[in-house]
Amino acid sequence: MVHVDPVAVVVGGLALMLLAAKLGGELAIRVKQPAVLGELIAGILLGNLSFGGVAPFHALAENEPIEVIAGLGALILLFEVGLESTVGQMLKVGLTSLLVAILGVVLPFALGWAVSAWLMPGASAYVHAFIGATLTATSVGITARVLQDLGASRSPEARIILGAAVIDDVLGLVILGAVSGAIAAAAAGTPFSAWSVARITATALVFVVGALVIGVYAAPRLFSVASLLNGRGVLVAVSLSLCFALAWTASLIGLAPIVGAFAAGLVLEDMHFKDFVSRGERSLEELIRPISDLLVPIFFVLMGLRTDLGAFASGGSLELAAALIVVAIIGKQACALGVTKPGVNRLAVGIGMIPRGEVGLIFAGVGAGLTLDGVPVIGPSTFSAVVLMVIVTTLVTPPALKWSLERANMSPRSKVQL
Amino acid sequence: MVHVDPVAVVVGGLALMLLAAKLGGELAIRVKQPAVLGELIAGILLGNLSFGGVAPFHALAENEPIEVIAGLGALILLFEVGLESTVGQMLKVGLTSLLVAILGVVLPFALGWAVSAWLMPGASAYVHAFIGATLTATSVGITARVLQDLGASRSPEARIILGAAVIDDVLGLVILGAVSGAIAAAAAGTPFSAWSVARITATALVFVVGALVIGVYAAPRLFSVASLLNGRGVLVAVSLSLCFALAWTASLIGLAPIVGAFAAGLVLEDMHFKDFVSRGERSLEELIRPISDLLVPIFFVLMGLRTDLGAFASGGSLELAAALIVVAIIGKQACALGVTKPGVNRLAVGIGMIPRGEVGLIFAGVGAGLTLDGVPVIGPSTFSAVVLMVIVTTLVTPPALKWSLERANMSPRSKVQL
Repeated sequence: MVHVDPVAVVVGGLALMLLAAKLGGELAIRVKQPAVLGELIAGILLGNLSFGGVAPFHALAENEPIEVIAGLGALILLFEVGLESTVGQMLKVGLTSLLVAILGVVLPFALGWAVSAWLMPGASAYVHAFIGATLTATSVGITARVLQDLGASRSPEARIILGAAVIDDVLGLVILGAVSGAIAAAAAGTPFSAWSVARITATALVFVVGALVIGVYAAPRLFSVASLLNGRGVLVAVSLSLCFALAWTASLIGLAPIVGAFAAGLVLEDMHFKDFVSRGERSLEELIRPISDLLVPIFFVLMGLRTDLGAFASGGSLELAAALIVVAIIGKQACALGVTKPGVNRLAVGIGMIPRGEVGLIFAGVGAGLTLDGVPVIGPSTFSAVVLMVIVTTLVTPPALKWSLERANMSPRSKVQL
Repeated sequence: MVHVDPVAVVVGGLALMLLAAKLGGELAIRVKQPAVLGELIAGILLGNLSFGGVAPFHALAENEPIEVIAGLGALILLFEVGLESTVGQMLKVGLTSLLVAILGVVLPFALGWAVSAWLMPGASAYVHAFIGATLTATSVGITARVLQDLGASRSPEARIILGAAVIDDVLGLVILGAVSGAIAAAAAGTPFSAWSVARITATALVFVVGALVIGVYAAPRLFSVASLLNGRGVLVAVSLSLCFALAWTASLIGLAPIVGAFAAGLVLEDMHFKDFVSRGERSLEELIRPISDLLVPIFFVLMGLRTDLGAFASGGSLELAAALIVVAIIGKQACALGVTKPGVNRLAVGIGMIPRGEVGLIFAGVGAGLTLDGVPVIGPSTFSAVVLMVIVTTLVTPPALKWSLERANMSPRSKVQL
């Protein structure tokens, strides 16, 4: 090598990963699936491509700068998803969404724990809890995208699903914080205690609620000040500084950085940027979009790259994957019980909550990065089972949701009414 | 630390660097200087901040993922600058710009070599050549921005300066390729020979010309195919894949990755994206802008962070800095001799070519990353002198250019005429 430039290695990988993401995404779209599914599968193919025992692209899965760039992608995605909702909307979705969300978190968590305890009796309770946690969070992005594709994004079912998905994202993140905090305490030699879990849960709740309350108060003032700045790219830089600073703070108190990124997205509202937009700048969502288009596919392709298809060869992993898929789908059907409003298509709500997507993968990624007694909490074979669960739950949702909505014979009028 | 997450460390640094960039940029703009100057100075302040001997932010200067993210910023900047010109415009600027460009490369290179040989008689010829190279390339971005601020971006002087700046960017990049290639050959034990320099120069020219010729032919076809893709963010992903792939190829044959990024920007034209724009998407320049707003300031702040003010304490470095500043300014005045067209403000052309900005820093950064006999080609003290040269040439240009244009008493009419 002539240049000892770490940038060169990374850009070669990024060029390949971006192209693979677009080709995979395109194929997925052509068969009426979300693009994210194709990105994952493209990554799986790249990572498992092997010529005479040499996997040429496997090294990308272990390149630290690429891992960090993909991690920024996950932050940007959660920030972007957070931007799509406001704290006010979350408070307004009311009892139905809250009930749907709680049922959609409690049952999958319990079922995931049970499946893990059943199939991996030797593993610690932390592993069971982590697997339960990966089953909790509905993918807001995938659900919203599917409803949009079906032209049903303003239906009552859509509102309930999206509201609940937002709430159970937060609940899931709190669970992730509690579980991973408990693991860290155990790794540091502190014994497992309900007290430590309660304390960590409280810290997580205090952070999320605190970030939201302070954020709602501070964000308009921050952007009033920022709008006085004259340079180029102030809106992007200040918003992402807030996102990164909250992500860093979350991590500092033991939460996953994505908790902070999501909270930052929630507290920011279009209203805060009116000074920027009125002087001809683009809205924050439009500005974040190209950044997300660059970084987010890197995250999904990397997740695919890390999926070791060889791990499926061992029967245990496939058994785990199959069991996780079943409880992931069944668990979310409990959500339908939370719908007390008459005339709402309960089946569609249950199905709409199925896709786990990015959040489940992020949870599994956090678990893969945590070690307990020198062993990763989520090992390669468990990780692959989670990825398979994400792939299948993502794959079944679009056709199933379409079927459930058409089955109820919703007229276009009834969609527009609400 | 609860989470062993490399992403958390990086996002903390990025939040700080982005805020520092915006505050520094704002202060620079308030005193009518380009924002990039404030970003550099903000980085210098952060990197040299010290409490009782502890520099809290100095570690950011050595974080590899941040280095890679900053490196992506440099690529995106050169890609963006390349996008602002087309291959056709470069061919059209004609003899005047070419003459101005050649004079603006040859004389600063020779003077830089002479100053280096004079003040550092013990250093190898490679060091002299590298310092000469850092003086060659005019900063297209800074020049264009200053002319725009002065409302003179359509004047004949502006056209000549911008055309010449584009050409001498390419010439400078070829020189960088030749010089760093020669150093790599020497590091590998190959003796220094005019033949190896000629071969590397030829390789560099073949790459640049080849990338441009193939790119001009292939780009429209690439984007016709890409426009058939349905997913979100296709334009961003395909364009940046091309940018990253050419950067990687450039590095593979021994050139700096930025050569490829710049070539990718040059071959892409708005025309190629008409299928995307006609279906309501933003133009590529608009899409790249937020990405650049995020990544480019990281590059400049990191460059500042790496500037060791302590290095200035040694007399030699300040002497070198002063000498480099003098030859950087004088060297570019030779450009005026290339202007044969009557009625053109030759003084303004010479002054407009002064700012070195990002390209000089990128060159110095490449030199800092190259080692010869275990010693970096551009050591910390030389690097600081180059940064000081960049700061001063950037700082003197706006007032001097304003003065030279007003001195010639250009009326608003004469600006619009051309």
